[in-house]
Amino acid sequence: MLDRTICGRTVEDFFRELIRFHGFAAPGLVLGGFLVDWAQELIGTDVEADAIVETTHCLPDVVQLFTPCTLGNGWMKVLDWDKFAVSLYDRRKLTGYRVWLDLDKLRSLPDLYNWYMRLFPKEDRPLDVLHEAILTAGRGPLSACAIRVTRLCERHKKQEIAVCPQCGEAYAASQGLKCLACQGEGYYEASTSSQIKP
Amino acid sequence: MLDRTICGRTVEDFFRELIRFHGFAAPGLVLGGFLVDWAQELIGTDVEADAIVETTHCLPDVVQLFTPCTLGNGWMKVLDWDKFAVSLYDRRKLTGYRVWLDLDKLRSLPDLYNWYMRLFPKEDRPLDVLHEAILTAGRGPLSACAIRVTRLCERHKKQEIAVCPQCGEAYAASQGLKCLACQGEGYYEASTSSQIKP
Repeated sequence: MLDRTICGRTVEDFFRELIRFHGFAAPGLVLGGFLVDWAQELIGTDVEADAIVETTHCLPDVVQLFTPCTLGNGWMKVLDWDKFAVSLYDRRKLTGYRVWLDLDKLRSLPDLYNWYMRLFPKEDRPLDVLHEAILTAGRGPLSACAIRVTRLCERHKKQEIAVCPQCGEAYAASQGLKCLACQGEGYYEASTSSQIKP
Repeated sequence: MLDRTICGRTVEDFFRELIRFHGFAAPGLVLGGFLVDWAQELIGTDVEADAIVETTHCLPDVVQLFTPCTLGNGWMKVLDWDKFAVSLYDRRKLTGYRVWLDLDKLRSLPDLYNWYMRLFPKEDRPLDVLHEAILTAGRGPLSACAIRVTRLCERHKKQEIAVCPQCGEAYAASQGLKCLACQGEGYYEASTSSQIKP
């Protein structure tokens, strides 16, 4: 088990990097490692690939750690679909591969199926038992297919910016005559005391 | 210059980690380092803090690298507002600090103002000149204030999942009777050839 590699790392280094970045080795990260590992193998090393992740949970962190794609560099897009799937595709040709958790295959692994479908309380399965089951299963519960990306493939470019007449901060001009916070979409109340000195 | 620290790292390590994760040391990352550094200093080390970032560009990567908050662990939320600001807040008390790029202060630094407001073509300013200007400015062009978070503070919990009757994959039940991809929101065409063997 321990002489394999996941995303080009030894299992030990894979876990170490996950824990350092994410805080702990959530089972979804470990499973995600096998999705990313397979997608990377399919697309190959000589392709500049963008990523689309179909859940906000766990999987985006695996993509950010083990591929060149991050949220902040714009190479990874994240859909809030709660589907455990990732696509890597050639950003020029728009062809690539989607790898996903295949429930038909997962059903033959009851421990993992019950965990993923949340059919028993979290606390019933210790983390190390789940890790072991996921590492043993490897690509077993996954499927992959070749895809052509038809949407969401534009890079998210910086938009035109404007200065908000109310708060005086720069914002995306496309949002209107004021920034969204000054339009009432803000998420905070600022303290009435004066600003803090650096 | 080089004996300072940013986000607890030497300048050299700070740049090394940025480049490793993001691909290159975009000026926005370096500037972002000073926002995160100041927000962390204000909130202190004994508070479990969540993060809200007000732009998708660069700044989310700084937060993910140098705080415990990532997209995949749900501690960082990202708003697509193109405002260069970050808030760190106590996830129980909902109090914290917002640090932002203050245009009134930035105006006294014409090189940086012109870069941020994109008043000259990117290629007119070499990366190392911008880096130097940002490192010299430090917290100079930033402001900070205490805040109370009033929205967006719920953790994004995993939603109830269902099995899509069309594709057979698990998805967020809240999306309807089929997953969003099968409702026509998909971003890819799958190859007609059979699935790929692991």
